[in-house]
Amino acid sequence: MQNYKLVLSYDGTRYRGWQRLEGDACTIQSKVEQVLSRLAERPVQIQGSGRTDAGVHAKGQVASFCLPEPIAPEQILAYLREYLPEDIGAVSVEFAPERFHARLNAVRKTYSYRLWTGETPCVFERRYVYCPPLPLDTEQMRTASLRLFGTHDFAGFCSRLPGKKSTVRTIERIEIIEKPQELELRFTGDGFLNHMVRILTGTLIEIGDGRSRADSIDLVFQEKQRALAGYTVPAKGLCLERVEYE
Amino acid sequence: MQNYKLVLSYDGTRYRGWQRLEGDACTIQSKVEQVLSRLAERPVQIQGSGRTDAGVHAKGQVASFCLPEPIAPEQILAYLREYLPEDIGAVSVEFAPERFHARLNAVRKTYSYRLWTGETPCVFERRYVYCPPLPLDTEQMRTASLRLFGTHDFAGFCSRLPGKKSTVRTIERIEIIEKPQELELRFTGDGFLNHMVRILTGTLIEIGDGRSRADSIDLVFQEKQRALAGYTVPAKGLCLERVEYE
Repeated sequence: MQNYKLVLSYDGTRYRGWQRLEGDACTIQSKVEQVLSRLAERPVQIQGSGRTDAGVHAKGQVASFCLPEPIAPEQILAYLREYLPEDIGAVSVEFAPERFHARLNAVRKTYSYRLWTGETPCVFERRYVYCPPLPLDTEQMRTASLRLFGTHDFAGFCSRLPGKKSTVRTIERIEIIEKPQELELRFTGDGFLNHMVRILTGTLIEIGDGRSRADSIDLVFQEKQRALAGYTVPAKGLCLERVEYE
Repeated sequence: MQNYKLVLSYDGTRYRGWQRLEGDACTIQSKVEQVLSRLAERPVQIQGSGRTDAGVHAKGQVASFCLPEPIAPEQILAYLREYLPEDIGAVSVEFAPERFHARLNAVRKTYSYRLWTGETPCVFERRYVYCPPLPLDTEQMRTASLRLFGTHDFAGFCSRLPGKKSTVRTIERIEIIEKPQELELRFTGDGFLNHMVRILTGTLIEIGDGRSRADSIDLVFQEKQRALAGYTVPAKGLCLERVEYE
């Protein structure tokens, strides 16, 4: 068996998310598996570093897969580029150690969330940005973001509690980057819960537009109640930028 | 009668070009006219600075129109932003002098043509760039572009000869801008003939990839034969960036 590491970018607009579903559902995982299975002439399953929701994009999603008989990475890459739809791009393919697993071995992920703050309509970026209420006080948002750093129980910042699994995560970095007509939020951490980046972004927006105060974050950590956090911003502004491994 | 100057941006992907056509054809002009006519409660016709072809984009298309009874520009802008589809953006609306005409008074236009030169797939830019044959010798292209400057008869660089109209145009500037994974060509001139920017770009690509030599341009000027120039690159890489007036 030969193991591989595959890096993918995709425009999630027309997909029902990463994960393969029953039936003919249009998902990223099933599109990629279809092409790899055709190449390998047998069913190939891939493991993503994590699921992205319907409408979420990626520039550096990582997946691992095994082939019973090795094929050169360059050949796989060329085949994927030939046959994947144009909204899914194969960035790289390489041999991986036998024990490499895209989800289990991921140690760090970075997500971006793009907010359109321009006055003019975002014609060309419309599928990749969300237009929040304006104006936003970015200094307030930056100050508030400091409270999210570090290791916390993010149970109040996720959309459904995954049974008995831990909801403790560590956020290593939050950047709030002002660009022309745009505000980009970047979150780096050891892992993110369901909808967590979108709820963190909604919470920071509510602080930025004055609806909430920065110390509301402490209350969410304390009470662990989803209702105390901000709203879930739409999927289209979210992009999985990078997944890192040891 | 009150005259107006309107600046529009649009993603031309799903349109059959700028110009209103018979029937229900989906064109930029008819979409904008529909919304303005609804606002004014009577038929409104707009004059574009020029037609863009099916699939061509714009960041700064200019149109003029008259209303029998004046409406505040801010109100028109807000109405357009509310009701235009999200792939057409109203950038600005202002009062214009009675004699202002978007096409007849235009003195200068700038078009960009975006070439994707990256090795990785252009997932997010795929509607706005064209992937040319690679590699391209940008120095050769830059040298060749010098021959296009100035006032020439561009009859050999357009797709159909428009009857007895003059095919003499002046190109004031050509920029070849290298960006990460991309090569952008920008053409500024007093006007451009049918398909002219796309044929000039195809000609420069053929020089850049070694199929033609820079002096082939002189032959096209001399013989005025379309067949001697390069191919017509696809519409999707082309964008009308700006229209200038005195």
